[in-house]
Amino acid sequence: MAAVLVMQPTDVYYLAGTGQPCNLLVTPGREPVLFARRYLELARRASRVERVLEGAGFSAVAREAQLGEGPLGMELDVLPAGLVDRARKAFSEREIVDCSGLLLAQRAVKDAEEVEAMRASVALFGALHEAMAAHLRPGVAEHELAAELVRGLRRAGHEGVIFQRRWDARLPAEGALASGDNLTTMSRGPITVTGVGLSEAFPMGASKRRLERGDLVNVDLGLNLAGYHGDIARTYAVGELPDGIAPLATACREIQDVALAAIRPGVSSESVYDAALAAARRLGVEDSFMGYGELKGPYIGHGIGLELDEPPVLGPGVDTPLEAGMVLAVEPKLISPAFGAVNIEDDVVVTADGCELLGDLPRSVFVVDESGAVSGVPSAA
Amino acid sequence: MAAVLVMQPTDVYYLAGTGQPCNLLVTPGREPVLFARRYLELARRASRVERVLEGAGFSAVAREAQLGEGPLGMELDVLPAGLVDRARKAFSEREIVDCSGLLLAQRAVKDAEEVEAMRASVALFGALHEAMAAHLRPGVAEHELAAELVRGLRRAGHEGVIFQRRWDARLPAEGALASGDNLTTMSRGPITVTGVGLSEAFPMGASKRRLERGDLVNVDLGLNLAGYHGDIARTYAVGELPDGIAPLATACREIQDVALAAIRPGVSSESVYDAALAAARRLGVEDSFMGYGELKGPYIGHGIGLELDEPPVLGPGVDTPLEAGMVLAVEPKLISPAFGAVNIEDDVVVTADGCELLGDLPRSVFVVDESGAVSGVPSAA
Repeated sequence: MAAVLVMQPTDVYYLAGTGQPCNLLVTPGREPVLFARRYLELARRASRVERVLEGAGFSAVAREAQLGEGPLGMELDVLPAGLVDRARKAFSEREIVDCSGLLLAQRAVKDAEEVEAMRASVALFGALHEAMAAHLRPGVAEHELAAELVRGLRRAGHEGVIFQRRWDARLPAEGALASGDNLTTMSRGPITVTGVGLSEAFPMGASKRRLERGDLVNVDLGLNLAGYHGDIARTYAVGELPDGIAPLATACREIQDVALAAIRPGVSSESVYDAALAAARRLGVEDSFMGYGELKGPYIGHGIGLELDEPPVLGPGVDTPLEAGMVLAVEPKLISPAFGAVNIEDDVVVTADGCELLGDLPRSVFVVDESGAVSGVPSAA
Repeated sequence: MAAVLVMQPTDVYYLAGTGQPCNLLVTPGREPVLFARRYLELARRASRVERVLEGAGFSAVAREAQLGEGPLGMELDVLPAGLVDRARKAFSEREIVDCSGLLLAQRAVKDAEEVEAMRASVALFGALHEAMAAHLRPGVAEHELAAELVRGLRRAGHEGVIFQRRWDARLPAEGALASGDNLTTMSRGPITVTGVGLSEAFPMGASKRRLERGDLVNVDLGLNLAGYHGDIARTYAVGELPDGIAPLATACREIQDVALAAIRPGVSSESVYDAALAAARRLGVEDSFMGYGELKGPYIGHGIGLELDEPPVLGPGVDTPLEAGMVLAVEPKLISPAFGAVNIEDDVVVTADGCELLGDLPRSVFVVDESGAVSGVPSAA
């Protein structure tokens, strides 16, 4: 490529260090240039790039760029077609190719500072646990529980928005919360325990369903602290654990243990999935592993960082080798109309010889009794 | 156009009535076809379109389409360039043109049912006022206030996500909250009172600044009830109204009154802005009207509906004539480092001979005293 013109806010933040709306031009052998779409002084103050110019119109960028031979890279997976057409015209009909794969591969491996930022993000999930202990009671509606949850997360420092790359992604700040029949109704998605939401306009997340004693409640949420995301899921039982759930909780944790043990530099992303699937078979829970019937998601986790969902997917056919410094969310789920859903998701960093959990929230299914006391099955390891 | 292929979730919901991920093919003279990207049964159950097929790959859509002469319309303002390229290939290199203007023009005029849905959405802003009365106190941090606000809105029925069309839009569910110096630091945007946020990764919205007695706090928020948005802004004073604010509050309301009086079918969008600007001049507040110095936003409002920000902009150069059934947010702001910001935003529906306010929250700057009692300046009209 003759140059790369980066516009997506997360990519700009990663490379230039500012969250102000900017276009970043990176040309081999030349100093990078940041073009501020608004608020030049704030962009200049925050930017790691020295050269910050006012105005980011494509003609101004093209004049400044003076490109050599080769195509121009842009983020074709996220930038609107109309916008890219305007860029193509301003760059005299130059060929434009996708540079997102390159950026995402670079972002996949975190440096020590980024890992610490993600550890700090994951630490805020204590607020999830506190909110559930205080408010998970019979009679509370899913959306009321979601309200308490988002309050706690926002107070703890959650930015209030989750960064996602997909053009049609929409997710409330408190993630997807579901209970009862809503645990097995997969709606909108693309995740497997989605909830059904408040209305057809946005049919996922918390609904107005009221909790009853013995219900399971699944919470799958991202948390954005200073741009770095944690992604955790837990299942909570209202008042008492329903019959038959304890062995499923133990199986779910065992599948997660097997997946974590399979993670180390050099192995392929799909091998982690293969190990988890083999464990699900051995434990006799293959039918409910990552969904049921036709509604199964072929993955056991994914990369995570400045966006909630980053490459690589830990799933069949993904041969990306794992590298030290990658941060991965590992999320075995058992889902079936016979019992609902059991879900344990945690985030790990790949180390020189394995992986390390970023948080210390017990990897259990929790029961919250009517006094707010919480017990876990299996108990904390 | 030979046909229009609609993919953006809000447009699909508007035309087909489902929030499930679908592609909608509309061909003149033929029955529309909905292609479910996932969860066929849920899409079929909710859809107003009779013919719902499984699988939404572009080759399947192209086979089914059997298009006549003419280009294919797609939403080029929002669909990623890479996605549109794949569609172009599947449709044998057919020309693809933007159909978003067409869809947005149709969506701009609401029917009676939509107006009632928006009235219901605006009614939920009582939750804003209650949260501010209960929690606006010296010592509270902006993000703690935001946490209480989002809790109240979510309990009231807010979907938890705001639908926005811009590809790079990001907004917390409780909107932009700012106080003190943060009222006049315009960051990220694009709105004029943005707040500065918790971190450089997302530098807008509530920060960790702690409120002091005599501070002004600005809250500008959208609310999504069943897909239809309200957009309201109010300014609250902590404990007492600072000197000099009462006449600015009166001026702000008078500018809004003038703008509302200028709205009726047949007038141009820019004429509403012109009327508001003339009022600001007459009242001697032109320097702070919609910003200060170089940081001014040339508009007084915008359309609103299934997205928080819809055409037309009420601003200079926009000659779109207003029509009965349009719903508009009218938001005069006075902003200056000399006093901070005063902001009154409300939503109206254009009627046969003028417009009608959709809500009944008093159009005042409010003072919340230490007991939680609220008074308004100017008092409710």
